[in-house]
Amino acid sequence: MLKTAIVGATGYTGCELVKILSRHSQVELTSLTAVLEKPQRFNQLFPQYVHVDLICGNLNIEEVAQNCDLVFLALPHTVSLEIASQFLKLGKKVIDLSADYRLPAEIYEKWYKTKHSHPELLKKAVYGLPELYKEKIKEAELIANPGCYPTSVILALAPLFKQGMVKNNSLIIDSKTGVSGAGRKADINLHFSEVIANIKAYKVNSHQHIPEIEQELSKLANERIDIVFTPHLIPVDRGILSTIYLSLNKEISQKEIFNLYKDFYSQSPFVKILKNFLPQTKDVIFSNYCQLGMKMVKEKIIVISAIDNLVKGAAGQAVQNMNIMCGFEETEGLM
Amino acid sequence: MLKTAIVGATGYTGCELVKILSRHSQVELTSLTAVLEKPQRFNQLFPQYVHVDLICGNLNIEEVAQNCDLVFLALPHTVSLEIASQFLKLGKKVIDLSADYRLPAEIYEKWYKTKHSHPELLKKAVYGLPELYKEKIKEAELIANPGCYPTSVILALAPLFKQGMVKNNSLIIDSKTGVSGAGRKADINLHFSEVIANIKAYKVNSHQHIPEIEQELSKLANERIDIVFTPHLIPVDRGILSTIYLSLNKEISQKEIFNLYKDFYSQSPFVKILKNFLPQTKDVIFSNYCQLGMKMVKEKIIVISAIDNLVKGAAGQAVQNMNIMCGFEETEGLM
Amino acid sequence: MLKTAIVGATGYTGCELVKILSRHSQVELTSLTAVLEKPQRFNQLFPQYVHVDLICGNLNIEEVAQNCDLVFLALPHTVSLEIASQFLKLGKKVIDLSADYRLPAEIYEKWYKTKHSHPELLKKAVYGLPELYKEKIKEAELIANPGCYPTSVILALAPLFKQGMVKNNSLIIDSKTGVSGAGRKADINLHFSEVIANIKAYKVNSHQHIPEIEQELSKLANERIDIVFTPHLIPVDRGILSTIYLSLNKEISQKEIFNLYKDFYSQSPFVKILKNFLPQTKDVIFSNYCQLGMKMVKEKIIVISAIDNLVKGAAGQAVQNMNIMCGFEETEGLM
Amino acid sequence: MLKTAIVGATGYTGCELVKILSRHSQVELTSLTAVLEKPQRFNQLFPQYVHVDLICGNLNIEEVAQNCDLVFLALPHTVSLEIASQFLKLGKKVIDLSADYRLPAEIYEKWYKTKHSHPELLKKAVYGLPELYKEKIKEAELIANPGCYPTSVILALAPLFKQGMVKNNSLIIDSKTGVSGAGRKADINLHFSEVIANIKAYKVNSHQHIPEIEQELSKLANERIDIVFTPHLIPVDRGILSTIYLSLNKEISQKEIFNLYKDFYSQSPFVKILKNFLPQTKDVIFSNYCQLGMKMVKEKIIVISAIDNLVKGAAGQAVQNMNIMCGFEETEGLM
Repeated sequence: MLKTAIVGATGYTGCELVKILSRHSQVELTSLTAVLEKPQRFNQLFPQYVHVDLICGNLNIEEVAQNCDLVFLALPHTVSLEIASQFLKLGKKVIDLSADYRLPAEIYEKWYKTKHSHPELLKKAVYGLPELYKEKIKEAELIANPGCYPTSVILALAPLFKQGMVKNNSLIIDSKTGVSGAGRKADINLHFSEVIANIKAYKVNSHQHIPEIEQELSKLANERIDIVFTPHLIPVDRGILSTIYLSLNKEISQKEIFNLYKDFYSQSPFVKILKNFLPQTKDVIFSNYCQLGMKMVKEKIIVISAIDNLVKGAAGQAVQNMNIMCGFEETEGLM
Repeated sequence: MLKTAIVGATGYTGCELVKILSRHSQVELTSLTAVLEKPQRFNQLFPQYVHVDLICGNLNIEEVAQNCDLVFLALPHTVSLEIASQFLKLGKKVIDLSADYRLPAEIYEKWYKTKHSHPELLKKAVYGLPELYKEKIKEAELIANPGCYPTSVILALAPLFKQGMVKNNSLIIDSKTGVSGAGRKADINLHFSEVIANIKAYKVNSHQHIPEIEQELSKLANERIDIVFTPHLIPVDRGILSTIYLSLNKEISQKEIFNLYKDFYSQSPFVKILKNFLPQTKDVIFSNYCQLGMKMVKEKIIVISAIDNLVKGAAGQAVQNMNIMCGFEETEGLM
Repeated sequence: MLKTAIVGATGYTGCELVKILSRHSQVELTSLTAVLEKPQRFNQLFPQYVHVDLICGNLNIEEVAQNCDLVFLALPHTVSLEIASQFLKLGKKVIDLSADYRLPAEIYEKWYKTKHSHPELLKKAVYGLPELYKEKIKEAELIANPGCYPTSVILALAPLFKQGMVKNNSLIIDSKTGVSGAGRKADINLHFSEVIANIKAYKVNSHQHIPEIEQELSKLANERIDIVFTPHLIPVDRGILSTIYLSLNKEISQKEIFNLYKDFYSQSPFVKILKNFLPQTKDVIFSNYCQLGMKMVKEKIIVISAIDNLVKGAAGQAVQNMNIMCGFEETEGLM
Repeated sequence: MLKTAIVGATGYTGCELVKILSRHSQVELTSLTAVLEKPQRFNQLFPQYVHVDLICGNLNIEEVAQNCDLVFLALPHTVSLEIASQFLKLGKKVIDLSADYRLPAEIYEKWYKTKHSHPELLKKAVYGLPELYKEKIKEAELIANPGCYPTSVILALAPLFKQGMVKNNSLIIDSKTGVSGAGRKADINLHFSEVIANIKAYKVNSHQHIPEIEQELSKLANERIDIVFTPHLIPVDRGILSTIYLSLNKEISQKEIFNLYKDFYSQSPFVKILKNFLPQTKDVIFSNYCQLGMKMVKEKIIVISAIDNLVKGAAGQAVQNMNIMCGFEETEGLM
């Protein structure tokens, strides 16, 4: 049994990791930590996890490391930076769910307004999108687990950018997300009464996930790709629906597009290409699937992508990465 | 006091008309009708309308006409066709909230799959968007009250298309709507449990409001405009947020755009141009306002428009039209 | 025109006061204050209040007093204590929406864990439930505006307790409330994702509104009344539904009960007694009505009461009190 | 592998059965049927069930029976009556999730307004509440799977009624349920816009689950028990919270009550007795647990019970019954 620890176990992503790992056949959960006034049984903090009776207390890195092989960091951006480095030094594998190891230092510093204290680790870090980087993930010691929007968008676009089929400057990404994506924190903007009857755009073309999306699309396309990206906050708990518009630079039929996607994801158990209908978030929430649908409209193509932001967009993908790193079945614990 | 009747008073739009008209200082509500098993007091059917104790029964056109000057038709598409014609024959002014008199007969027939039985009335019908057609509305006897999406989109785009500033084929319209837009009817797809945790696109580029939007944008632009339009269903009761992307064919600053919109709507009491922040639906629900915000992003512009689909997108706009037709203050009953 | 000020204008109750007072025909809104980092236009803070362009800044009592006749305090409990006293000293009428002047000092101190610094003002304070205390309200200078649960419960029970008809120890109050009742504050328990799919009881028989309910029922009954009270948090923004169970100490028919209530509230424009159907919150939200229904079940009676916690349970009732104090029509601004 | 069929697979309960059985280690799902215009793959009807590619078509009893050992009937009340009988004749075990075999014929006929066509089967039917009837369930061929409210209420009260501790006529049951309990059907009262912002009581003391609750409480108490029961509809998808008030006929401490419950349910893996805090629905939804909490208030006791109406209140309990009938681990497929 692989011994795993979760640092930041009380956030929405941390709890989702607890849920998945506690029913994973190859894993023993050895430690849960979080910032708490006093240590508490996890199933007292969260009574739905009836059988998880580990004590959750504040992080002591040495102690956690003594009894684990692999650690998940479900921490706010910039908090992981140092903690990841210390677990690595102690010989532990690290899957970091924050943005701290996803971007080159100078881009990270620009978007996250923080000095990157461990640029030397960036070359070790593997961007943990298994559909693109499975071979590298197998060898990785440090995984930079992708953001939720980037997962939603990159999976929707990878087949087209890989083929160089996207017309310059034609790309528009309009995403809608549930509230859990903002994290479990006291914030007036996340107050039930502020959110419940509202639809709004936010951080229009200034969201911190933009450089991550642009980085991966640019790699796929072998040229610099800029995006227009509008995230919207929707009164649901979970789920991201991305509606993506673009023009193609060659003629292609709806059927060829479908086959292109089917082929591209033929080895990807968690990407489902829909025929004749389009994705909706209720078909993917609580699952690790990304469902993709495409529709040709005049000279444009609309790609719609649905994921659960906490599963395929965070904890589920992290476990998928762990499965690949550790030689388990890729889908173990995730079906 | 103007005597008004509402045909179709028990739908969401009908109820909203009742609410607005029952507090309008120049209007007496003389008749409410709907398809019902038996006549019933309106405030028994809908106890929130404490003071509306008119009996609501089935429609008898002659009877209704005897005691009204102007009639609102809040009926499903194709049902208004004949009823509007009969009220007109009896000399009554008609504000039709359906799509039946908004489009040329051949386009109507293509999109609504119904023979248009009164094409001769189409030239009398005035498209009731007061921000564009106030002068014609003053003289009208038959108003084709605009659809909710068209109101949201046309108001967002009129200043730019009027100036011929929109680059060909660059327009993308991504709209998000609440569930009341689908009408008050028993339908498994509108069941609470189907809708509550879901985000989905529907009728992608096949929504029946497309020809109406294209018609009005084409008139403004003086050339044929085709749109890409993706409506989304969101778990809120009310509100439409349209996020619209386009490229301009000349350089212009954010400030010039703002001034262009301010000038265009300087005589429009219900259009509010936002500076430094963007619209959200909670700021317009239960009001007749359309709030508009714009943001330049690289070579593109994003225009965001928020309305209440039942007010500015239906009943409120209908009353605004009535105010203009009857020489009342345009904002009467709507503030 | 009566000059009025709102202290605490940015909370949910404060905003509701702004909404009601800004369309009240006898009132001029002269000042809005709140704890803010810097003064800001109210309609920039809350874009839905398009026409309220007063600057909202921090409270300066002298300044506010110079330009107002009556002040509404929409402040957290214990904050009003001192502020009310100072406005009174400056000769202003005060309507306090907190609990600070509703209870005898010793009971207040027990439940609110704060020393009552102005017990001398308690005899001046009138409990502002117009259905019970209209005559006293006419003369009042300081109104203790009732809590939301107490309004919901006392109105439901007053006719029965006044008649001495309630059997000892038979009373059970099970209330369900929307989230706005908890106030507009950053709190993890009010996070959308914590609330949206949940039903829970809270503060079971320990809610701070208990002494207020017991005080008023005891006065009506002329004996000490103890209650069992379980509030529940429901994922709606607004509305309280109280389901109240009790046994009667004499036989009476459903019709007699109905008439008893009708008579008791014959002079109360905002209490509506339902016949043949029961209240639901959607029929009262956004209105100042309390709707009451009763059903006999075996030897018990179930009384159901519905109000909007922010209107009849707070801001609307405060304006109703102002109307009575100032000789306006009781319903002015509230229909 | 046990071969199982689901009749009525497209309702909310049917889908939940599909979900649970498709991951059950001892079961093969051989047939899904429902009333459909034409047969369709289940994972096309419900794309979230990615791996369930059985064809779902109309019911042919002989065909279904040929390839199954046990059949689940997830059908509306009165539809199961005949179908259950036929599967039994063909030697199949039947778990009926409707009310058709829960009550004596004359009581059934009174509450469900339908002639009971198979009273002879009623003595074979075992009421499938494993916490009370595990031994009988082991031998059963026909299970009458309990209703959702009865499960919630009987589990909350069994220890007290078994001990004869409940004072006569003191019992009040106030339940709150999510909308999925009403079933997956087109109904204007279940329209999103009717439900989303509303709290209401319905079928006050006239709900068809009353005789089922009274029957089981009476058996436990060995005397006739009448209840006062008010169900409420809450805008959530899933979950029932029952708040139950009663007086005890002897003095007992909070701790003794706790121990009484702990002992009573010591062999019940799905009943969880809470200490020091109270149940809420979010801790049980998507699980087969019933969480119970108790609080003494003056001379009364409040018992709060939370379940997922579709799992412990329907499909999960049905599978729990199957596990017991077939000698599987009671918790198999349900953790």
